[in-house]
Amino acid sequence: MAERIYTACVLIIGNEILSGRTQDANLNHMATVLGESGVRVREARVIPDVEDVIIDTVNEVRAAFDYVLTTGGIGPTHDDITADCIAKAFGVPLVMSEEIAVRIRGRPAPAEVMASRLLMARVPEGATLIDNPTGGPQGFQMGNVYVMAGIPSVMRAMLSTIVFEGGAVVRSRSVAAYLGESQVATGLTAIQDEHPAIDIGSYPFMRADRYGTTLVLRGTDETELDAVLAEVKQLIVDAGGTPEPVAE
Amino acid sequence: MAERIYTACVLIIGNEILSGRTQDANLNHMATVLGESGVRVREARVIPDVEDVIIDTVNEVRAAFDYVLTTGGIGPTHDDITADCIAKAFGVPLVMSEEIAVRIRGRPAPAEVMASRLLMARVPEGATLIDNPTGGPQGFQMGNVYVMAGIPSVMRAMLSTIVFEGGAVVRSRSVAAYLGESQVATGLTAIQDEHPAIDIGSYPFMRADRYGTTLVLRGTDETELDAVLAEVKQLIVDAGGTPEPVAE
Repeated sequence: MAERIYTACVLIIGNEILSGRTQDANLNHMATVLGESGVRVREARVIPDVEDVIIDTVNEVRAAFDYVLTTGGIGPTHDDITADCIAKAFGVPLVMSEEIAVRIRGRPAPAEVMASRLLMARVPEGATLIDNPTGGPQGFQMGNVYVMAGIPSVMRAMLSTIVFEGGAVVRSRSVAAYLGESQVATGLTAIQDEHPAIDIGSYPFMRADRYGTTLVLRGTDETELDAVLAEVKQLIVDAGGTPEPVAE
Repeated sequence: MAERIYTACVLIIGNEILSGRTQDANLNHMATVLGESGVRVREARVIPDVEDVIIDTVNEVRAAFDYVLTTGGIGPTHDDITADCIAKAFGVPLVMSEEIAVRIRGRPAPAEVMASRLLMARVPEGATLIDNPTGGPQGFQMGNVYVMAGIPSVMRAMLSTIVFEGGAVVRSRSVAAYLGESQVATGLTAIQDEHPAIDIGSYPFMRADRYGTTLVLRGTDETELDAVLAEVKQLIVDAGGTPEPVAE
């Protein structure tokens, strides 16, 4: 019986990534953490701070994946519209979370500043909170959508508190060689056809003007992974190369 | 009369980005280069090496944006299915490009290796080529879809040869302060409401355990940008902060 596969989509919300100003640093970490829980990120989207786009995208992907994780847009300024959009996507009002408000009120501030900070206490009705070990306002979970901060250190702290139900963990084996992809392509196809449960990826690289290829095997069965790794190493040797170790 | 806005979507094709193994390095560069041509990246998607997903995504986004740029999946191995998927998305056959084939044949190789390398000469019927200044096989353009390599150095070389028709270039002004976002939120909303043509983004950061906020103004009118920057700096001073320069 095929084991259930758990899937996720990551939504990175923010004009600053799309303008090229900021390099996203969250997808990679989220994919790694989810992978360790047996959840596979099947898609990621970077979308702008535009209400219709956020609402439509959330509704599309929450129906298509087991989990949706968002980062960005949950601060107190005019461009922080994520909570509002999630509420609209689910067709519920935004309500004040007393739990978040208590945390925010714990740090005194002038009235106008406090009013702005309390905007961060608004969550869609029915949401549960995601803890924020850095001490700031919490994120929230609404259905299968997990809404987190965009600051990488805060996102990581929030993510570390969530337990995802997942399936078998995908493991990898890798090996590199200073060979062109074409030198192993035919042999790789044969190995891939023999082992459909293993996903074989071939990634060319250039280091110090030398072309090489990293071969990455991914699958849930470690015995089969080791067997395929041995076949791939033999393929490299047969093609006149030397298998080079790669950090997993 | 409102000037025409040119939009783009970037598609990053590759399981290795979604697994967390590899950090994408292409979106940021593409967004910057497109921006300099007056083209705005409005969305980016990272999708897996899965035929149906690539075809459906390409057809969705090529109808929604002026330009679509893809990276990844145009090598000679079994997991390189981008050219085939683009052909299917456009409903045309894959054909051998003699121009690419001549370039590939210029570097001799054993028959089996050459057969694999020539897989990279296949392009959708009707495509035009994108030059590859690194000397490898070319990319191609099919309709408004630009198909490029995934290796960052090769993608950059290819991208540098393309001329995009764009609109007014979006410029930015930035300033930072060691203030919480809440301390400027109300004032920022007022400035944003006064200047709808300027997109004001507020990005919190944490450096050495100190919270701060970077404010980024984006728009096509440099005079208005400078005026808004002056207002934002005054807002920072009024909130008890010091405007700190930020590299554009």
